[in-house]
Amino acid sequence: MPQISERAVLMPASPIRRLVPLAEQAIAKGIKVHRLNIGQPDLASPQVGLDALKNIDRKVLEYSPSDGFLSLREKLTGYYDQYQIKLHPDDIIITTGGSEAVLFAFMCCLNPGDEIIVPEPAYANYMAFAVSAGAVIKPIVSTIDTGFALPSVEEFEKLIGPRTRGILICNPNNPTGYLYTREEMQRIRDIVKKYDLFLFSAEVYREFIYTGSPYISACHLEGIENNVVLIDSVSKRYSECGIRIGALITKNKELRSAVMKFCQARLSPPLIGQIVAEASISAPRSYMTRTYESYIERRNIMLNELNKIPGVYSPVPMGAFYTVAELPIDDADKFCAWCLSDFSYEGETVMTAPASGFYSDPNLGRNQVRIAYVKDKLELQRAIFILGKALEAYPGRVE
Amino acid sequence: MPQISERAVLMPASPIRRLVPLAEQAIAKGIKVHRLNIGQPDLASPQVGLDALKNIDRKVLEYSPSDGFLSLREKLTGYYDQYQIKLHPDDIIITTGGSEAVLFAFMCCLNPGDEIIVPEPAYANYMAFAVSAGAVIKPIVSTIDTGFALPSVEEFEKLIGPRTRGILICNPNNPTGYLYTREEMQRIRDIVKKYDLFLFSAEVYREFIYTGSPYISACHLEGIENNVVLIDSVSKRYSECGIRIGALITKNKELRSAVMKFCQARLSPPLIGQIVAEASISAPRSYMTRTYESYIERRNIMLNELNKIPGVYSPVPMGAFYTVAELPIDDADKFCAWCLSDFSYEGETVMTAPASGFYSDPNLGRNQVRIAYVKDKLELQRAIFILGKALEAYPGRVE
Repeated sequence: MPQISERAVLMPASPIRRLVPLAEQAIAKGIKVHRLNIGQPDLASPQVGLDALKNIDRKVLEYSPSDGFLSLREKLTGYYDQYQIKLHPDDIIITTGGSEAVLFAFMCCLNPGDEIIVPEPAYANYMAFAVSAGAVIKPIVSTIDTGFALPSVEEFEKLIGPRTRGILICNPNNPTGYLYTREEMQRIRDIVKKYDLFLFSAEVYREFIYTGSPYISACHLEGIENNVVLIDSVSKRYSECGIRIGALITKNKELRSAVMKFCQARLSPPLIGQIVAEASISAPRSYMTRTYESYIERRNIMLNELNKIPGVYSPVPMGAFYTVAELPIDDADKFCAWCLSDFSYEGETVMTAPASGFYSDPNLGRNQVRIAYVKDKLELQRAIFILGKALEAYPGRVE
Repeated sequence: MPQISERAVLMPASPIRRLVPLAEQAIAKGIKVHRLNIGQPDLASPQVGLDALKNIDRKVLEYSPSDGFLSLREKLTGYYDQYQIKLHPDDIIITTGGSEAVLFAFMCCLNPGDEIIVPEPAYANYMAFAVSAGAVIKPIVSTIDTGFALPSVEEFEKLIGPRTRGILICNPNNPTGYLYTREEMQRIRDIVKKYDLFLFSAEVYREFIYTGSPYISACHLEGIENNVVLIDSVSKRYSECGIRIGALITKNKELRSAVMKFCQARLSPPLIGQIVAEASISAPRSYMTRTYESYIERRNIMLNELNKIPGVYSPVPMGAFYTVAELPIDDADKFCAWCLSDFSYEGETVMTAPASGFYSDPNLGRNQVRIAYVKDKLELQRAIFILGKALEAYPGRVE
């Protein structure tokens, strides 16, 4: 039997999805599993998007252009304009989810052995795409006691070496909910400019900022226009994770040409998803407001309920719909699995994502979990109540 | 400005899509361009698939499982059973088009520097996915005078070295339309078994075999069950290129687990495409028959019309909907571009794919083009007539 590749061995298993089989077993036993582990919003997709789907009147479901429909890219320029991000349609390449945008960015910017600096905890799949490109993530650790603020310039500079090719940020952040301040973004800009790095910036949660603080996009930063690669997706803002429509945005024409070769190799992004996404950009303000208000309410409930459980601490996330909370436990991997395999309270249990998967160092985040507050407020309240009960019963509890 | 990666420099431009800007310019000048360059069937997608699309009644367009819906995988086992391919739903992983199946197969099976042997001319994007994985394609050239039959075992063995990890075939073949015989498939099996190689087999055109010859799948070959990776797609059989639904099929459990990590990293295949694909498996026999009969007729027209043009030769393709034809020209890249930039006949011109893009050696296929016969018979006839006129007028004509 031929051997699988070293890259396949290195590839990390998803910290979010690897507990799924245990959850399925719990469900099979009749236990209700409150899923706070995955950033799948429960809110309805915009009606204009759903209507566009119903109204598709094509006889042939054919390829679309490799960079996506021009009409979608044109409409997106208007969308970004609302955020003072000035783009030409050719600056935008439509991808199969934000995932493909990250993969193509890494493939085009990083040689095997090249390094990128990533503030951690970080979205686990960045590591997977780095492994795909043979690149190395150099983590710079942010800590829960500063609310996961950006580490200092000195900390960054300690990591910069001859193979450093880029910095990757996620803003607002998954998994921490942290929002980089203007001053922090300026700091990143200065480092990027000084060392001529790529700045990969995933900004798929810009709609979800709760503190009135300004959203500073990597595209707002002056003097590094050719260094910035914006990663975007409609998944979160329109509750449309399933249509797999994202974007890779760059003003660097050489990079665009390179990415286009990867796009042509995979032929097209999904046709139907593009039609839904394009329509969804016209979602009325009331849709976005309602969505936003739901998350505001959920975030408050989550924070209140979490922080009143003895031994639990969640900082106040400024954006996105996640928090990384500290629990009074020995090991979050064990705890999260135990909740599914050995625990239930009144026939219910809770599924959270162990934070270990969001750090490169296996010793970090051992007592942290990521919680996605993508559930109706009553369910969220109940889920966190169940989490409290699980923590009372857990044999590995640490005071 | 930071540099793009070496891989991005190496990545070939698509031979099929790189002429698109010239075609757009021709269209802008009011010229009708007969597009025989791309394998986008013009035939309608099955009505059951289109109906399924209209009947989607979801409020949230959410993630689907990373390996695709179980219901789709179950239904596919029935589909494959018709071809005496016996599968369990867990042998099937749903991918974002056949393209992603090739990418993941290469990522999981090939280390940087590893080699795979590929009969050429070959589907150009295999090269792109090999470059993505850092792997090296060792071409084994088939020639037009044998109708692109498989080269001998000796020719294969000349190429096998310490880094050889697999063989990739496409059967029925894109771009040649060649169908491997039972004896040829047996030969491939013996080599795969002897050297313990992976056998990547793209079989997306199995519906389109015109000669009554048997379809021998890589999955029919005995004794190499753990070596075979079947690449599939619904794009061609249901005229559904745009929904981006393919499959990676393997009975090798270690490989499956590895591929699943890549699948989890990109979260899900397209939700809506899966719904359409699942419904399309129930397309009535009359749909498949009608489609098949259209291609039979088109193939006959194409062959007759092509071979009556002085200096043109097309072998008889046994399957798929392409042929590689030899033209009386100096250079197909120049000719195909010239047809778009400098030629028209009664306001019409023709777009074909230069075959150079289907060979690794830039000196091969210089006088060959790939023609996709995916047009209505009258248009096809007209298009080939225009091709004849272009050949008469082309300044680089060679007798």
